[in-house]
Amino acid sequence: MTIEIPGWVKDAVFYQIFPDRFARSEQLPKPTNLEPWYTPPTRFGFKGGDLLGILEHLDYLEDLGINAIYFNPIFQSAANHRYHTYDYWQVDPILGGNAMFQQFLDGAHKRGIRVILDGVFNHASRGLFQFNHIMENGEQSPYFDWFTVKGFPLYAYDERKKANYECWWGMPALPKLNTDNPLVRDFLFNAVEYWTRMGIDGWRLDVPLEIKTPGFWEEFRHRVRAINPEAYILAEIWNEAKPWLQGEHFDAVMNYPFNRAAYGFFGDEALDRSERPGGFRLKRLNARGFARQVDRMLNIYDWDVVLAQYNLLSSHDEPRFLTMVKGDKQRLRLATLFQMTFPGAPSVYYGDEIGLEGGPDPDCRRAFPWDDRHWDHELLADFKRFIALRKTHSALRNGDFATLYARGRAYAFARTDATETVVVAFNMGARPVNLALSLGEMLPEDAIFDRVWSDEKYTVVDGVLALPLPSLAARILVYECPRENSA
Amino acid sequence: MTIEIPGWVKDAVFYQIFPDRFARSEQLPKPTNLEPWYTPPTRFGFKGGDLLGILEHLDYLEDLGINAIYFNPIFQSAANHRYHTYDYWQVDPILGGNAMFQQFLDGAHKRGIRVILDGVFNHASRGLFQFNHIMENGEQSPYFDWFTVKGFPLYAYDERKKANYECWWGMPALPKLNTDNPLVRDFLFNAVEYWTRMGIDGWRLDVPLEIKTPGFWEEFRHRVRAINPEAYILAEIWNEAKPWLQGEHFDAVMNYPFNRAAYGFFGDEALDRSERPGGFRLKRLNARGFARQVDRMLNIYDWDVVLAQYNLLSSHDEPRFLTMVKGDKQRLRLATLFQMTFPGAPSVYYGDEIGLEGGPDPDCRRAFPWDDRHWDHELLADFKRFIALRKTHSALRNGDFATLYARGRAYAFARTDATETVVVAFNMGARPVNLALSLGEMLPEDAIFDRVWSDEKYTVVDGVLALPLPSLAARILVYECPRENSA
Repeated sequence: MTIEIPGWVKDAVFYQIFPDRFARSEQLPKPTNLEPWYTPPTRFGFKGGDLLGILEHLDYLEDLGINAIYFNPIFQSAANHRYHTYDYWQVDPILGGNAMFQQFLDGAHKRGIRVILDGVFNHASRGLFQFNHIMENGEQSPYFDWFTVKGFPLYAYDERKKANYECWWGMPALPKLNTDNPLVRDFLFNAVEYWTRMGIDGWRLDVPLEIKTPGFWEEFRHRVRAINPEAYILAEIWNEAKPWLQGEHFDAVMNYPFNRAAYGFFGDEALDRSERPGGFRLKRLNARGFARQVDRMLNIYDWDVVLAQYNLLSSHDEPRFLTMVKGDKQRLRLATLFQMTFPGAPSVYYGDEIGLEGGPDPDCRRAFPWDDRHWDHELLADFKRFIALRKTHSALRNGDFATLYARGRAYAFARTDATETVVVAFNMGARPVNLALSLGEMLPEDAIFDRVWSDEKYTVVDGVLALPLPSLAARILVYECPRENSA
Repeated sequence: MTIEIPGWVKDAVFYQIFPDRFARSEQLPKPTNLEPWYTPPTRFGFKGGDLLGILEHLDYLEDLGINAIYFNPIFQSAANHRYHTYDYWQVDPILGGNAMFQQFLDGAHKRGIRVILDGVFNHASRGLFQFNHIMENGEQSPYFDWFTVKGFPLYAYDERKKANYECWWGMPALPKLNTDNPLVRDFLFNAVEYWTRMGIDGWRLDVPLEIKTPGFWEEFRHRVRAINPEAYILAEIWNEAKPWLQGEHFDAVMNYPFNRAAYGFFGDEALDRSERPGGFRLKRLNARGFARQVDRMLNIYDWDVVLAQYNLLSSHDEPRFLTMVKGDKQRLRLATLFQMTFPGAPSVYYGDEIGLEGGPDPDCRRAFPWDDRHWDHELLADFKRFIALRKTHSALRNGDFATLYARGRAYAFARTDATETVVVAFNMGARPVNLALSLGEMLPEDAIFDRVWSDEKYTVVDGVLALPLPSLAARILVYECPRENSA
């Protein structure tokens, strides 16, 4: 079976934006009752971020080096996270509406920045027209079969009663759409086609496995790809998802196994293990344990699929990485460097790059501080260097992967393509180590590596690269293959 | 003060359509759970009428002779009458959505049929985004000040509690918009401008006097007329409304005083006085009582305003005329003839013309029976004749009005313009009468009248027109002024 995955994804560096919290333009009229930008986020409050604000900060994003944006939901919704869809056809008015989104999309594309949207199709909100219709008209509503209602009156806003209709995790605010009804499927797919036609570059799909209707995701893929053969289809699945990544459903998953492995190895002793992101108990990992997780990630899927995975350290659904490692910025740095050198598309959750902290939801969704006195400028410079590194070296994006070392708290690997070999080594231990990396037959005898961001050079001797590594540090070494004369 | 009223209104014959009930196209996809077309209407059920269905029946309307349509609300709403607005920017999807409305509007305009929409701005629905937003987020919603909320949680769907926010007549389904908030006004006026720009010919305004915000209707008029100087602005006011018809607010009102006078005189002994349409107690009227009401209607407003009034016999808000007169079709016929010969724009409520009956809401909103075995074809032919009469005779639309006779159950008047004098006479009594209509100086001696729909001629003798009138009958006589040579 051929797995058709858009070629651009393996070269992508994503930036995840939570739209209410990234930037608020002064140009856009707003309702009055917004929270102050800098106060801690609340469960129900709105900061009033908008798309024009983001457009006005594309210089910042371009400078950071990212070339793709994943937006948390932007469709009209009465929730600050907008996962409770009110209207699948409208961009939220607080964000600026449909015309502003088109303007944003054009502005991003002009800079070579791709845009994927969050598609939330399993459940909607109590405000969705068809649900509201049932609330107003009961079983006489023509939309009665758009949801699965078990009795009347509906207990939708009555906190003393259990919701008597199917909803996500029993939450009355999230009535589950009856996707077994072909009218519902068409309604959703028509909206999907509308936005795909507008020119977006793909979809991140919220809890897709909650939709049990046979053929739903096959049809989704077919209809999206018929409009844009280069659309990326990314599923929110927190576990391994081999059956779903065979070319018929999704291109990739939100790579939470990557996230948990990174927590284990780079977080290690600093890790706050009282948190269970996504319900998972996090484990500290030594280099061998980490290597096992890494190997599994790399081997479970087809290589093309591996290159398309969405590798994340933080997201809107868990405490920020920096907060999970108790503010240890060196660990965030090293994990980010790993992310930027690993197969699959890395994603920076807005604000991680300037050292923004944040505990569990809603705290992990703080407003981005545009007053740069709040920024860690050194951290930001490192994020830029790491992203630039990935973009400079094709082997980091497309190259083969080989583990070179995994012992104690030290871990090293090589990425190799036709033009270069890049060696990446980490020492998460408390003491310096001297690695002897056996490169075997990979390289010519006496090959010389350049250490990036430095003048140092390392020569391979008898197939072995000797590499001293301080505690909590990394080294990136590059060997460029001699170019053959094309004549 | 100049009162600028669109010139087309005095030549208009309206047809009022309740969109869920007039016609349902087979071409338009529909949700499944619709009521059968022919079953009695229910409070919450939908029949699934749509705009394409109406478009497909424009031949019928053109043949009937009408040249303007007043639509009950068409914007997205979870109520079958659509007075509970869910989205001011969307035509309801069951009706066919915005694109279908544009198609309808173009089709109607091509046939010279104008279209006015129902504007419901005092209250919205529990499903309106900004109200739903408050339900979801409480006082943290940025739209908190779009309604007048008196406490949390909102008792919006709790039948045991009184609604704790301002709503129309205390009905929780109809939260009242806070038009004192300039953002709310702008939101509404932007939608008004959007539809006006799309090309509609005016607005019928629902309960406009419930909006107490100073300047609201002045601004409405200003913004509408800036886009379409020919837009008709018609207010639902059930009483005399002199202060509102001075050129600053509305052009006309739904003329319920006309309706009540017609009930009194043409309904008379057949009138079902147990009903109180709009809360008014109906009275039987003899010719003198009727003439008093008529004179009051004609004198209270400027003449231009009189010519623009919306004269109706039935509407969606009360039992149908035919039902109110206990099925006596002759009374409906005569009242309709009066309506078609009276100053002001007559309105036919869909179905009255084929003898559709209907008691109080929801029964007065039955589906139109397209199987013409259910039609009274003679009645329909008369409606066509009466409408054609109005269109043929300019004096009936624009001419001066003079009462000629009002005694017992007989009533006669003349309409006169530069080209003709039309005499209209009714005998609602149980016996024939011989009227002696004193035309005084209005006409030349020996003027000869033609009786319409007949070969009879009547000559004025000594300034008096002798006119025998059977019981429950009417006569229309036309005297054409001799044309002067223009040479």
